[in-house]
This record gives sequence, structure tokens and C-alpha cells, in this order.
Amino acid sequence: MSVFTIKGVIPPMITPFRQDGSLDLAAHQANLSRWNETDLAGYLVLGSNSEAAYLNEEEKIALVETTVNYADKDRLIMVGSGMESTRETIRLTNRLAKVGAQAALVLTPNYYGDQMGEDAQVRFFTDLADASDIPILIYNVTKFTHINISPKAVCQLAQHPNIIGMKDSSGNIPQLISFQRMIDPEEFNLLVGTASAWYPALDLGIQGAIMALANCAPEACIQIQNLFEQGDRAGAQALYRKVFPVNHAVTARYGVAGLKYACLLLGYQPGHVRRPLLDLSEADKTAIRHILLEAGLLE
Amino acid sequence: MSVFTIKGVIPPMITPFRQDGSLDLAAHQANLSRWNETDLAGYLVLGSNSEAAYLNEEEKIALVETTVNYADKDRLIMVGSGMESTRETIRLTNRLAKVGAQAALVLTPNYYGDQMGEDAQVRFFTDLADASDIPILIYNVTKFTHINISPKAVCQLAQHPNIIGMKDSSGNIPQLISFQRMIDPEEFNLLVGTASAWYPALDLGIQGAIMALANCAPEACIQIQNLFEQGDRAGAQALYRKVFPVNHAVTARYGVAGLKYACLLLGYQPGHVRRPLLDLSEADKTAIRHILLEAGLLE
Amino acid sequence: MSVFTIKGVIPPMITPFRQDGSLDLAAHQANLSRWNETDLAGYLVLGSNSEAAYLNEEEKIALVETTVNYADKDRLIMVGSGMESTRETIRLTNRLAKVGAQAALVLTPNYYGDQMGEDAQVRFFTDLADASDIPILIYNVTKFTHINISPKAVCQLAQHPNIIGMKDSSGNIPQLISFQRMIDPEEFNLLVGTASAWYPALDLGIQGAIMALANCAPEACIQIQNLFEQGDRAGAQALYRKVFPVNHAVTARYGVAGLKYACLLLGYQPGHVRRPLLDLSEADKTAIRHILLEAGLLE
Amino acid sequence: MSVFTIKGVIPPMITPFRQDGSLDLAAHQANLSRWNETDLAGYLVLGSNSEAAYLNEEEKIALVETTVNYADKDRLIMVGSGMESTRETIRLTNRLAKVGAQAALVLTPNYYGDQMGEDAQVRFFTDLADASDIPILIYNVTKFTHINISPKAVCQLAQHPNIIGMKDSSGNIPQLISFQRMIDPEEFNLLVGTASAWYPALDLGIQGAIMALANCAPEACIQIQNLFEQGDRAGAQALYRKVFPVNHAVTARYGVAGLKYACLLLGYQPGHVRRPLLDLSEADKTAIRHILLEAGLLE
Repeated sequence: MSVFTIKGVIPPMITPFRQDGSLDLAAHQANLSRWNETDLAGYLVLGSNSEAAYLNEEEKIALVETTVNYADKDRLIMVGSGMESTRETIRLTNRLAKVGAQAALVLTPNYYGDQMGEDAQVRFFTDLADASDIPILIYNVTKFTHINISPKAVCQLAQHPNIIGMKDSSGNIPQLISFQRMIDPEEFNLLVGTASAWYPALDLGIQGAIMALANCAPEACIQIQNLFEQGDRAGAQALYRKVFPVNHAVTARYGVAGLKYACLLLGYQPGHVRRPLLDLSEADKTAIRHILLEAGLLE
Repeated sequence: MSVFTIKGVIPPMITPFRQDGSLDLAAHQANLSRWNETDLAGYLVLGSNSEAAYLNEEEKIALVETTVNYADKDRLIMVGSGMESTRETIRLTNRLAKVGAQAALVLTPNYYGDQMGEDAQVRFFTDLADASDIPILIYNVTKFTHINISPKAVCQLAQHPNIIGMKDSSGNIPQLISFQRMIDPEEFNLLVGTASAWYPALDLGIQGAIMALANCAPEACIQIQNLFEQGDRAGAQALYRKVFPVNHAVTARYGVAGLKYACLLLGYQPGHVRRPLLDLSEADKTAIRHILLEAGLLE
Repeated sequence: MSVFTIKGVIPPMITPFRQDGSLDLAAHQANLSRWNETDLAGYLVLGSNSEAAYLNEEEKIALVETTVNYADKDRLIMVGSGMESTRETIRLTNRLAKVGAQAALVLTPNYYGDQMGEDAQVRFFTDLADASDIPILIYNVTKFTHINISPKAVCQLAQHPNIIGMKDSSGNIPQLISFQRMIDPEEFNLLVGTASAWYPALDLGIQGAIMALANCAPEACIQIQNLFEQGDRAGAQALYRKVFPVNHAVTARYGVAGLKYACLLLGYQPGHVRRPLLDLSEADKTAIRHILLEAGLLE
Repeated sequence: MSVFTIKGVIPPMITPFRQDGSLDLAAHQANLSRWNETDLAGYLVLGSNSEAAYLNEEEKIALVETTVNYADKDRLIMVGSGMESTRETIRLTNRLAKVGAQAALVLTPNYYGDQMGEDAQVRFFTDLADASDIPILIYNVTKFTHINISPKAVCQLAQHPNIIGMKDSSGNIPQLISFQRMIDPEEFNLLVGTASAWYPALDLGIQGAIMALANCAPEACIQIQNLFEQGDRAGAQALYRKVFPVNHAVTARYGVAGLKYACLLLGYQPGHVRRPLLDLSEADKTAIRHILLEAGLLE
């Protein structure tokens, strides 16, 4: 199996729900139409921002199928298929592969966090990569998992022909450099997982990003990379600084409900969050509108 | 719906797996036979020590059915039915109720931890209790969830007629007292979730416990309560102190793999852990054998 | 050097400051007069609740001297003499011994927390105990130091003839039992450091406590122990539960400023907190007054 | 008072101690002679890497005096003068100013961490800046203090004419950008506090750094900046990546003892660490030697 090279911006797509909590595939399809018009490099279905933790397996299949059917053919279809157990992760990954997923982004297991040392992590990803029909990327997101994967473990896993990359969502630039020391960028796709690190990551040679902000502001995320690659570092950095507060709002501060409201204001069909997530208060909505205005994303 | 009074010791039952990771219901049945011979008050299926995070839905159903069929008729059948979303938790709870579960112990949702404030928690358990066919108990286990439920939220939820108790696994005795201040013990079953707090909890008026140690040493756990209730505090405390190190070994130190090995040494059929959990090293096995010998559980 | 047996209640005495932040020894003397009328077992000068971190060395000497001069002769005078370095801790301890301190309660060093493993902790307390003119007690207060001392390290240190005890302020009852397993209570004074653990600790055989609440409500703290020792467990537990919320208010919730305000309402002369601590808002003051009323400490 | 502009590399100077723990000013003077030969922009006395937490006041004065006397006249003399209380911090700062300190780098108070909210922090630095004879820089080092200062608080404090900057040692690049949004770089010196962030910080317009690595490898630290300013980004980044593991070793992994051993290998006179810090094991020494060889700092 040859290695994909992943370059560009990928949104961890929001999942639209109706008021009653049911999955709204038509809204998802409408969002895909708009994203298809941009230069996004691919789509992540079933990421953290997709409320994947709230979906059952049939809903996961339906979302991936719809995405495969309506995505532009040049887009990479990546899926979040991590479960707590090795066998369930293998099973789900291969089921999603059958309906068209091209690569799987897999969360580090974390429920029994104290027992998830380096050995267990290496064993998990190795067993998975051995059995998976599609290439695997490691998903390191300490904010949600409360555990980290070490540069040493990543180094070992990067040797596996079916482990082709990692999304690091820590925003920790020095750690990104530690990871870079351990891998061959020709063989392993090191991706940033948050817009807060996007410009510094580009400057350090990272070429791909999967980030919440790309849901509501894909053009700005892409333009940062384009400006940078055209040699206009000042322009890239200025745009990055401009959208920085939006990213904070739609991730750390207001979470998925904030991201969905920003998407709504910017013309997407995000629907509702699924409970137990709560809708935003009116005050929070006003704050987000203000942040989008300040960033020039809304007029 | 009237309130169950839960008094006595309940094991969060281990789930036996074969070497290849498949579910071993025959071994589960064999373990039930032995537990049936003791005075355990009930059984928790699908708890943290059951590796519930590693089971798929059909396996969950099968385990509950087997437990219902083979448990002594005087035992309370409690199930761990918490999922991240409200709707999936309701669906699973009612499906398990249909096959005989009598009460559900439900984990606080935690993936989007920053968004799981008091409002979201109260909403989640209220929505669930409104829709559940069986009574609900709150499961507070900060070690795994990294979030706590406040005494104030518990106070509010305890008013709901279909929320009948809580298992607090923090081992935090002062917090237990804070919870006690908020509830009417006639109306709400406050249970401890770890043997490390068992004797102090009894002394504070707690009457029920769900604890890992009750898998491998049910008699000792029950005897602590019996001695205490017969007025032999010194005897109860002495036995508690004797088994204290065993509890530490089968929870904090060696986790589920340690618990299963202790069960094996004490005549149960625990099978293997499911990956990514790793089997114990020989050195760890020797350490556990030594701890059981010291505690007088093994000769 | 023979071992002190420490039994009873000791307040970590508040330090009165004037509005301008200067030390008010007259107020301290007045407080001592009131405490002398109670059955407190001793006094801790320079504890966490004494704002010791805010005092310079001459102020520390002055406070200890005043305490030695005005304390009832039957009271144990314990001092907080922990500094970050071994040599400064030795120097200060012996300087305070010269002016009358009878035992030193020494904080685990913590600035370079990552480097303060078991070896460094054992070396620190051993070097100190070797050189100290008065007996040493270990002060374990993870809330302020962010590091814990392990039962294993305590076991080793308890062998030293000049290390006579420990104050554990974690409120963690299971950990208290772990410490108890490691020591001989005839040779080592294991003290609780928070009123939130006082009744459960008594029930486990602990005989001494150093706790913030003993500043403003010494009689209640002492009475809990008296009732317990007279065999009236129900009475002891009822009183403990009654003052429980006061303890929470004067420690976790409102800190030293809250403790000082409670002291003021109950007739002591606490003066002001030293900056950067801030005085309480009027709303916070009202809340504390209400809590004291509820607990029956104020009429 | 006009604002200093701080540009360039400043070492938080190690403090040499003799085997018996006494202060070795002659060794300090020898180190200064070597540092004087480089293009370091200034010297920080009494930083975290100076074991300042282990020094008494007279030692602090002596170190500052020696530094003032032996430093090249073009070097900025900055001192770490933070104490827990406002009044002691003011007193020490002004005492150090009298012997020649030109600016003070002041740690956020942290002992009573729960009480050190934004209000308390703003009050502390404002009171200090009002009373200090020299300009103040905020020192944010969450690793040691376990508290963070918010961008909002920094924004407010930056308005004070006597607060001229901040050293942020978190290594958190996105947070650095949040701080940048809040300040005018002409009026406020935002400095990085760790070499792990040095190249990314330069790229974001930061012009000054105070970092442990500058003790043992000042030339490399300075050269990274020079290459960057000459437009050779590739060269700057390559050198940064080369010394990255050395920085990790002399901070996170081996702490001050590791830094001192690296200094020894590279020709400085670091002396010993003060207890309770422990000297390195032989294995650790070998590891550091190897890391320096790999980085090309040692032949």
C-alpha cells in the first residue's frame, strides 16, 4: 500500500441534526455542495466536531455513504473510526472502508487511561493497522482523551506501512517539532488539528490541517496556506491573526454549539447540536456574531 | 414508581473473554453460579470493571440476558447503560430493560467535558429519567470521566421520581458527606463505588456498595458489613484493613487485568482482558499472588 | 529524643494584619487569650492559614515569640518552618527552636515539582531531621504544593527518631489508611489536616487534628472528639455534620479571607488578609454569616 | 519612565554552589566573563534556573551586586524579585534596584492558587508597579506556579507605565498570539521563556528570549536570531531543530541539575545544585553528553 500525501485543509465536518435530534442528511448534502465549491483537500466524517461520540453505527454508515456520494471526486474521504476496543475499531473501520472511506483517523483509546501506556498504544495501532483495509492516521487530542501519545511511540508506529500519519490537536508547537524529529515527512503525514497552530505549523513545514474553523471559514483557511506558499508570509500571518479569535470561539470557548452557530451565520445548514450538548444562549450568539464581524467573515 | 432500597454488596461483574477476544458466556454463567452461593445483593452488568467500553450492543444484550437467566431470583440486576448522547442512552437503557434489567447505572457524559456543566448534566439525567422504563442511578467516576457531578446537581436530580440513587466512585469521603447533605436516604440510594471507602462509608450510614473487590472476594466484602451491623466495629475495621491492599491492586495499580488475575487465583473463570488492555507480566502476577496471600484470601 | 504524643485539636492560627498590612501582635495576643480558655492541645504558628507564605523572617520570629509568651504552658507550640531549600529550612527551624518552638511542621518542597521524587523527598526530610534541634512533622498538602508524598516514603522517614509525625491535609481517607499501614501509631503521629475528615479519622483511630476550623470554632472541634471518646458516636457525627459546611466555607470556598471573617463574627480579632489576597465582597460576607447561623455557631 | 526595548537573548543565569551548598561568587564571576564575550543582550539574576527559590535575601543581594560589577556595561540587568506577598515583593525589588538591578521579572503569586484570580493578579502587579523603583515584567510560568495569567489581565496591566513586558514560559505558541493581540509591541516587551519556542516566536515577531539554554549554548541561541534577521530562515530553523533536544534535556527532562552538567561540559563553572535537588546519576550524565554531541555543541 502506497502512502497518501495529504496536503491542504480538511474540515472535521459538523453533523446536522433536526430539532428532534434526528440526523439530517439533506442538510449535510447541502453543506457538501458548498464545500465542494472550495479548494478543500478532503473531508473528515465522524471527527470530534462531527459529534461522532453521539452517533450510532447506522448513522455513521449513512453519513459516510452520503459524503462519498456527494463529495467532489478529488476529495480525500477520511473517517473517524476509533472505538475503545481494538476489535470494534477494526470492525467499524473496515465497515466504513466498504462504503468508500479512504483513510481512518483513529483516536487513542482512553477510558482506562492509567492502563494506556506506550506498550498498549503501540499494540493497539499495530493490531489495527495490520487488520485495516484502509490506511490509518493516529488522532492525538489530549483535550478530549486526557492522554498523550509520546514521540517515541509515534516513531515506532510510523514504521508500519499502513500507518500513514497523525493529526495532533494539542496546539503544542514544540511537541509538533518533537514529532517531526521522529518521522520522515515523505512517509508520514503530520497534520495539525487546530487553526490556532496553522500559520506556525506551515512555517515549520507542515502541509496539512484538519480544523474546526474550516467548516465555517474554509476559504480563509485555504488562503492562509496559499499566501504562505506564494511567499507572502506577511499576508498569511495577517489573515491567520484575523481569524484567530473565531477559532477560539468555535472550539475552546463555545464548542460545537458555537461552531454550528457560526456556520449558520455564514450560510451553512448546521442544524442543532445533539443532547446533552446545549444550544447557545442569546448572549453567546451575540458574542459569536460580533467575533465574526470583527474578523471580517460577516458583514 | 416506588424506590428500590439498595442495601448490601454488588459486584461490577467482570466479563470473561476467550484468548481470541470473543465473549465467553459459559464462563460468565459459571461465575454467576459461584456468586449465587454468596449473599451478594445484586449484580451490576456492564460496569467499568466489565470492560463495558469494549462491548458492542449485541454483546451487551447477551450479557444481560445471561445474567437475568442465571442470577438468583433475589438479586437486583443493575446495568451500565450510559452512552455519550441522551438519545442513545435512552434507547440502550430501554432495550436492556426489555431483557430484564431492573435499574440502570448511568455514567456522566464526558467526551465534550468542557461543555458538560451543571445545566447539561441536569438536563441529561432528567431527559433520561423521563424516558426510561427502569429507575436510574447516577454513576460518578471522575477517574475515568475527568468530570465531577456537584452536590447541587445531585440535589436537584434526587427530586426526580425515577432517579433513585448514585454510585460515587471517587473514594472521597468528605464529598460523600456533601452528597448526603443533599439527599433523603429514604428516597435516594447513595452507594460507594470502591472498597477503599467501604468501612468509612458504613460508619457514615451508607448501606450499599458496588465495588471491584466484590468480584474476587465477595465474602470478605459482605462480612465487613455484617460485622459492622452486628456492632463489631473492631472486627469490621480489621477485615477492611486486611483486604485494603487487595483492592488497591485490583483497581488503581493493575486495573481490570489485575482484577481478572485475582479472580482466577480465587477460583473464578475470568478469561482474558480485551485489547487494547494488556495481560499482566509474570512479575505483576507474582505481586498479586503475594498480595492475596498477605490478605489471607489465598493459602 | 523521645516522641511527643500529639492528641487533640490544634488550630493553624490565623495571623492578624492591620489595614496597612503590618503585623498586629496585640490582636494575636488577644486571640491567644481566648484560645487559652479552651481545651486546644496546642498551637500551630506559621501554617498555611497563618499566611506564612507572606511573612518575612523577622515577622515569623516575632509571631513565635509572642505565641510562646502568651500560650498556656500546657500547649504544644508547633511551627511551620518549611522553606524550599534544605539549608534554609534547617536554619529557620533551629532559629525558631531557639525562641521556643517545640516541633516543626515542614512542607514538602515543591517549586521544582518534577524533580521532587521520592528520593529527593526522603533526602530532604532526612537531612533536615538530622540537623534539627526539634522534632519534625511532615506536612503533606497537595492542594498548595501540587505534589504528594507516597506511603512508601513516609514509611522510610518514620524510622528516623527525629521525624515524629505527619499532617495530611488531603482529606483523602483511603490514603490516610495507606499511611496508617506504614507506621506505628505509638511512634508516629498521623494527624489530619482538615475538619472535613475529622470524624471519619477519629473512627479510624487518628487522635489529632490541625484544622482551619479550629480557629473560629475550637469548642465544636474539641467536642466532636470528646463525644467520640465518650462513646457517643451519634452525637459526634451529628456535630461534625453540622459544622461541615462551615469548614468548606473557611477553606475551599473563601480561603483565608473567609476564615478571618468567620473569626471576626465569632469574636476573634483576625484583622485583614495580606495582599495579594483580597478582602471578601459584601455578598461573600453575607453568605458566611448565613452559614455560621445555619451551623448554630452564630445566633 | 520610558520603556526599555528588550531585544535579543538573555540567560536566566545558573547560580554556582560549592559541594557544601555555599554560594560560589567567584565561579559566578568566571561565568560572567565568558558570557561577556558573547552578544547576550542582558542577564537575568534570580530566575527559576538560578535556584532563586533556594536563596536567602543576603545571597540574592550578593549575586545581583556581583553581576552588576562584572557584567559588560551594555547588558541589561534583570532580576527575579517575586515573593508571595505584595509588600515583600516591593521591598525586595527596591532593595535589588538600589544595588543596580534595572528591571524586575516578577512571578505570579501562587501559593493560595484558588484565590489568585484575575482581580488579585491585576491588583498585585498594579500595587507593585506603583511602588517599584524599576520597571516590572510579568513572569508567567505555569509549570512551576500551576496558575496562568489571562490575556485579559495582561491587556489591563500593559497600560501601566511601569509594567514593560512579560516573559511567557509556557511554550504555548497559540497563547503567545493571544497575548500579542492584547499589547502594543512598541510599549510592551513580550518575551519567550523557553528555547523550545524560540524559532516559532521569532517568526511571529517576538524579539527577545530568556531561556535556560542560553546558559550553556548562548552562541547558538544568538545565531538563530541573527540568521533569522538576515533573512536566512532555513538556516535559523535548522539550527533551532539541532539544539531542540538539548533544550528539552536541560529543562523538562533533567531540570537544573541537567543544565548545570551541560554547562560544565561546555566549559562553564556551574558548581553543584542545592538540596533538595539531587545531582545527576552517571547514566543521566552520559545521556546529556550524548545529547550535546548529537547537537554539535560538544566534539
